[in-house]
Amino acid sequence: MARSLEGIRVVDLSHVLAAPTVTMYLADLGAEVLHIEPPIGDDAREFGPFAGDHDKNHSGYFISLNRNKKGLVLNLKQPKAREILKELIKISDVVVENFRPTTMRKLGFGWEELKKINPRVVYCSICGFGQDSLPEYAERPSYDMVAQAYSGLMSITGPEGGPPCRVGSSVGDILTGLQATIGILAALRYRDKTGRGQHVDMAMIDSVFATLENAVARYTISGEIPGPLGGIHPSITPFQGYKTKDGSYIIAAIGTDALFVRFAKVIGRPDLPGDERFRTNPLRTRNRKALNEILDPIMMTKTTAEWEAIFEKEGLPYSPINNMKQICEDPHIAYRKMLVEIDQPRVGKMRIAASPIRMSETPGEVYAPAPLLGQHTDEVLKALLGYDDETIAQLKREGVINNGY
Amino acid sequence: MARSLEGIRVVDLSHVLAAPTVTMYLADLGAEVLHIEPPIGDDAREFGPFAGDHDKNHSGYFISLNRNKKGLVLNLKQPKAREILKELIKISDVVVENFRPTTMRKLGFGWEELKKINPRVVYCSICGFGQDSLPEYAERPSYDMVAQAYSGLMSITGPEGGPPCRVGSSVGDILTGLQATIGILAALRYRDKTGRGQHVDMAMIDSVFATLENAVARYTISGEIPGPLGGIHPSITPFQGYKTKDGSYIIAAIGTDALFVRFAKVIGRPDLPGDERFRTNPLRTRNRKALNEILDPIMMTKTTAEWEAIFEKEGLPYSPINNMKQICEDPHIAYRKMLVEIDQPRVGKMRIAASPIRMSETPGEVYAPAPLLGQHTDEVLKALLGYDDETIAQLKREGVINNGY
Repeated sequence: MARSLEGIRVVDLSHVLAAPTVTMYLADLGAEVLHIEPPIGDDAREFGPFAGDHDKNHSGYFISLNRNKKGLVLNLKQPKAREILKELIKISDVVVENFRPTTMRKLGFGWEELKKINPRVVYCSICGFGQDSLPEYAERPSYDMVAQAYSGLMSITGPEGGPPCRVGSSVGDILTGLQATIGILAALRYRDKTGRGQHVDMAMIDSVFATLENAVARYTISGEIPGPLGGIHPSITPFQGYKTKDGSYIIAAIGTDALFVRFAKVIGRPDLPGDERFRTNPLRTRNRKALNEILDPIMMTKTTAEWEAIFEKEGLPYSPINNMKQICEDPHIAYRKMLVEIDQPRVGKMRIAASPIRMSETPGEVYAPAPLLGQHTDEVLKALLGYDDETIAQLKREGVINNGY
Repeated sequence: MARSLEGIRVVDLSHVLAAPTVTMYLADLGAEVLHIEPPIGDDAREFGPFAGDHDKNHSGYFISLNRNKKGLVLNLKQPKAREILKELIKISDVVVENFRPTTMRKLGFGWEELKKINPRVVYCSICGFGQDSLPEYAERPSYDMVAQAYSGLMSITGPEGGPPCRVGSSVGDILTGLQATIGILAALRYRDKTGRGQHVDMAMIDSVFATLENAVARYTISGEIPGPLGGIHPSITPFQGYKTKDGSYIIAAIGTDALFVRFAKVIGRPDLPGDERFRTNPLRTRNRKALNEILDPIMMTKTTAEWEAIFEKEGLPYSPINNMKQICEDPHIAYRKMLVEIDQPRVGKMRIAASPIRMSETPGEVYAPAPLLGQHTDEVLKALLGYDDETIAQLKREGVINNGY
């Protein structure tokens, strides 16, 4: 099947999660991604869960993020490795990295240098506070947790009145990675028209902050400081999980006044929408406590499965709260082929999440496993840079590239 | 300043959040977005916070999401409105919608019809379970909360052992919207090369599921069912908030063994990395409880501000947990111009989050306020479709389009 990003080559100096997310989406759509690692490997290779024993080639975390990529080891502390990097950048369309902001400049690959090496290249840097930042942030390291905490996201996540909670997946990295990918694709479009590359300077704090929608508007309009609300939506009601007869929860997502009329009917309280306190969504939100005093005991009268059947029949938005086993074994996930099996070298068959970008002509696909540490160094140096065996052997002896894998 | 998506026209049949997120990113990057609403308006116009009284033109939520777009009202229940829609699609590059899966087909604008109207068009549909779904999901409505709950995200968010919590912002919608935008931009690239449009079929459940990284790998590799962990990272330790002397928290994000050596030194326990229980990250994660029994009392000996100064000096990743006031007034956000002031008709000056996509040549920008309900109907019908005043007056009399705004 054709792929939409065929012909795009990416020099991928990424590690752990934010920038590897970018290059995962690019690779799933067909870009040739050269994932360049230091001799010690991408830090993510040290993160579990491990498929087998603790080994740099066994990290399920690394494998799921780096499928479809080629893996090279370059020891960038050595001038010869930096020369190879330069040659690769010359023949590439995109460079992606998430070092600390000053690292690329120190290596001689800041944007000012990069655009001299290849004026058509799109350079995407990701760090906590941006390449263009207040001086006191210029060296400040960041991780997902820092972005979740600093941006304000943690302050609105967790139980009402309780301690701030981290979002269970690393959305600080992932949201940034997705926005960065959008920036890169837009920059490639501009490059194709004008011949000019550019610098996409992503800051994780900005990226997460820009997704806080309601919470930002709430503060800027009214000065209100929203706190965590558990499983409740700050401005839609009822829109939350209710405990049922069997002790599990059902989500009722009653997003409009029309839905509330239908909801009220099926729970046997068709009078509720006529109650002045509950007539509109803003009123229901203001009077949430009074409404839930009515709803809580009603929702306890049936099991989650019974409510599901009723909500389904009436076309009301609802959901069980699936755990990871339930969703991984779910018929919808199976039908959409959202878990794919790969044959991972040294590991064997394993299942990883597929691309969610389903396109009729050029879908995002998992078409290759993740690279072993340094697996494609020789192959890439030969095929793309025309290096001969002797030169490669010399580079190995000098520790510029990996010797075997 | 030039914009990367100049010349791209988008027919935007979106409402509330997932698809409006797509068209917000496209508009920020310069696409001409025609946000088409029913006479009653996008549901989001009913969601607070309101700038002023409760009015369809005062929703801060709607305004922040729909900046840069043009607003049209078409009553698609009328054949003449559907004819106008058809004419707009003929001259557009992208169609985006997030109705229920069958709505577009019922209106006569399913993918099979759309590609006959305009074979070059990229059609992006977003719904809970996808256009191509198990039959029992074909009519099932979805909201952010449904995606967060069904996908498994809620099951790993919240305090350890506590009730599942919703992520404080609508990441079920937003993650889907970002991935959809990537799909659209990739499809446009393919369209430019081949002349062929295609259907990008996004399912919110797939989109969120695909971002659960660690949690998916954990289940597929070991059968383990991860639960919520509060503010802790499932596979990195120490990587969490610690309570300090003043009762607030500091995030210590010690992501590598090398960082742990430095962290142990600054807290006065340089012996810890030599302790066999804490030598590597997997060991620290396994022995988190024992480690925190040592760390908790140490972290209580200084205030958050004191720890910040120490961590800063040592280059250790850390963060305060900012609330919305703190982040909106933060010097980093100010320096990066991440809150921009718009002059919104009927509302006046207000601050909304800027585009996080900072590009050196064609940055994402807020260059126009959000449309009033139906503000640009006349203008667009005249400029793009060549309608004359008389025809427009007739359409108004028939209730096909809005009469005034």
